[in-house]
Amino acid sequence: MLDDRFSSGSGEWLGPNGPDNDVVISTRIRLARNIRGHKMPWRSNQCERQEVEAKLKSGIADSQIIPEGAYWSIDDLSETERRLLVERHLISPELAKGRGSRGVIFAPTENLSIMTNEEDHLRIQGIHRGLQLEETWRVTNQIDSVLESRLPFAVSSRWGYLTACPTNVGTGLRVSVMLHLPVLVHTDQIKKVHTAASRVGLVVRGLYGEGTKASGDFYQISNQVTLGRDEVQILRDVRTMVLKIIEWERGLRKLVMQQDRVTMEDRAWRALGTLQYARKMNSEETMQHLSSVRLGINLEILHDLGQERINDLFLYTQPAHLQVLRGAPSDPEERDISRARLIREWLA
Amino acid sequence: MLDDRFSSGSGEWLGPNGPDNDVVISTRIRLARNIRGHKMPWRSNQCERQEVEAKLKSGIADSQIIPEGAYWSIDDLSETERRLLVERHLISPELAKGRGSRGVIFAPTENLSIMTNEEDHLRIQGIHRGLQLEETWRVTNQIDSVLESRLPFAVSSRWGYLTACPTNVGTGLRVSVMLHLPVLVHTDQIKKVHTAASRVGLVVRGLYGEGTKASGDFYQISNQVTLGRDEVQILRDVRTMVLKIIEWERGLRKLVMQQDRVTMEDRAWRALGTLQYARKMNSEETMQHLSSVRLGINLEILHDLGQERINDLFLYTQPAHLQVLRGAPSDPEERDISRARLIREWLA
Repeated sequence: MLDDRFSSGSGEWLGPNGPDNDVVISTRIRLARNIRGHKMPWRSNQCERQEVEAKLKSGIADSQIIPEGAYWSIDDLSETERRLLVERHLISPELAKGRGSRGVIFAPTENLSIMTNEEDHLRIQGIHRGLQLEETWRVTNQIDSVLESRLPFAVSSRWGYLTACPTNVGTGLRVSVMLHLPVLVHTDQIKKVHTAASRVGLVVRGLYGEGTKASGDFYQISNQVTLGRDEVQILRDVRTMVLKIIEWERGLRKLVMQQDRVTMEDRAWRALGTLQYARKMNSEETMQHLSSVRLGINLEILHDLGQERINDLFLYTQPAHLQVLRGAPSDPEERDISRARLIREWLA
Repeated sequence: MLDDRFSSGSGEWLGPNGPDNDVVISTRIRLARNIRGHKMPWRSNQCERQEVEAKLKSGIADSQIIPEGAYWSIDDLSETERRLLVERHLISPELAKGRGSRGVIFAPTENLSIMTNEEDHLRIQGIHRGLQLEETWRVTNQIDSVLESRLPFAVSSRWGYLTACPTNVGTGLRVSVMLHLPVLVHTDQIKKVHTAASRVGLVVRGLYGEGTKASGDFYQISNQVTLGRDEVQILRDVRTMVLKIIEWERGLRKLVMQQDRVTMEDRAWRALGTLQYARKMNSEETMQHLSSVRLGINLEILHDLGQERINDLFLYTQPAHLQVLRGAPSDPEERDISRARLIREWLA
């Protein structure tokens, strides 16, 4: 059972003490690759997908890139297990929805995961705590090279890597940095972040990528264009913008602490009080309070709480995690009661 | 200084363990009386008011009805002291606004107060904890009889007691019962209370009487008509309606605890958490949370808190009380900070 390994602790990338961790949660890099001579997953039938999956599985296994990782076929996973993997950012919501000859292999540290037959045949993902663009790129790039030496990737000399969706053609690279921007939200300037990002070809998204809502002041910033810019340029563009946003958020935090310290204190303490006392709480409200508490810790308003404890709560209050931990029924009201109880015990 | 006597504890009437105290805060009875041969306060000049005040003062003093009570002239009281008396329901907001030869004398227990040159020459008020219509009437009526034996009250054989406002002519009696109706509010049925009351000539008002807003689910129900019904009838009408409302509120509390216990628990605990953790809080929000906590105690959700402690907070978080206790500046933001600190310390 997949559940057992996830019933305590979160992935290494959600841990504390990452670089620039006051604003940056994690750095994620994914590469989209396809195998030459096979139709893309969305065009191929079950038979062809099975053939591709087999090639990929043996290629990955031979390469020894994730020696301790098991391959999980989507068809073998329960609904809860699939959602569990989405909540841990190990698979995409899209893969979770698919069926037949698709799957994932990931490292026990959860820093690395490889999906098969998602939108593309292969999606390699590296994820690290805080702002670690170089390290994450280094690891992901290395995995890519090892696999490329064993698997015939579809590459055009003119376009670069070929992908299912034209927006990924070229490098097949998406760099995503997950940011915690409570004071940019508080001061109503988050729209400016969107504008500034889009001006340089970057895009700001919610917590679980494309089409998902920002929740609890968490935003993902990533490159939109993969064609016409090489990997180094893309990484540089993202880095430049992320550093700008970090400074922006930090500057505002300083300002607001000078000008309206009590409002920040009030927000952090109320959030903590509500988390410690509420008898039912939905996911969205939980994220909001955890965001305020996280900010309170970073602003040194709240002490002795532990960033790690709070980070784990972000994960364990999500529906699938809650279900695994508490066997909570799928009824939303019951889940909200179970969530509130978990939070109280966690913070006690 | 008036401040000193109010810096700890509230009047006897705000204490715990009054009859039907789960729903009824207090029972108040006031009698409007005027002195024959003098113009009503709103028509009289300073000179005439002074004459009336002198008569009343000596009449009250001679009668020995409030032996330990001192007479406080409104002109001698600071703005804060006047507001302090309003918050303790010892004088009306109207008296607090007036100037020149008006004042109040009240018993140390605060169960009894007599205002001079308010809307009428004389306003006698008795107030007791919980539902105590008979006892409150007995005391107030007795004071009235003693004073009537010494002062020439304006009475018409046809109309009864004559008063400044026609709505008080007749008995000059207003019976007010202060109710805590959180679940009638929660279930959106408070309008029905208004309708039911008005059908029998009663009226539902906010916390500080006429024209004031209901705050924290507290409502005053009182008779509107004083003419054509004698005291016994008025008391009976109020009693009948109050008993009906008590049963109504109690029935709903029971129902809601059966059907949606968690929502009630959630409400009480969140309110307590917010009171214990917030760093600033305005008066209105404070009332709302205190109301939820009071309900939580009555529903046996919250324990070891003490009704008395909570009742005192209702009083001491009001602006003037806060100012006396904390010397808080009149700046609203500063006051909200000071209020939150007081609540935290009180509940610690």
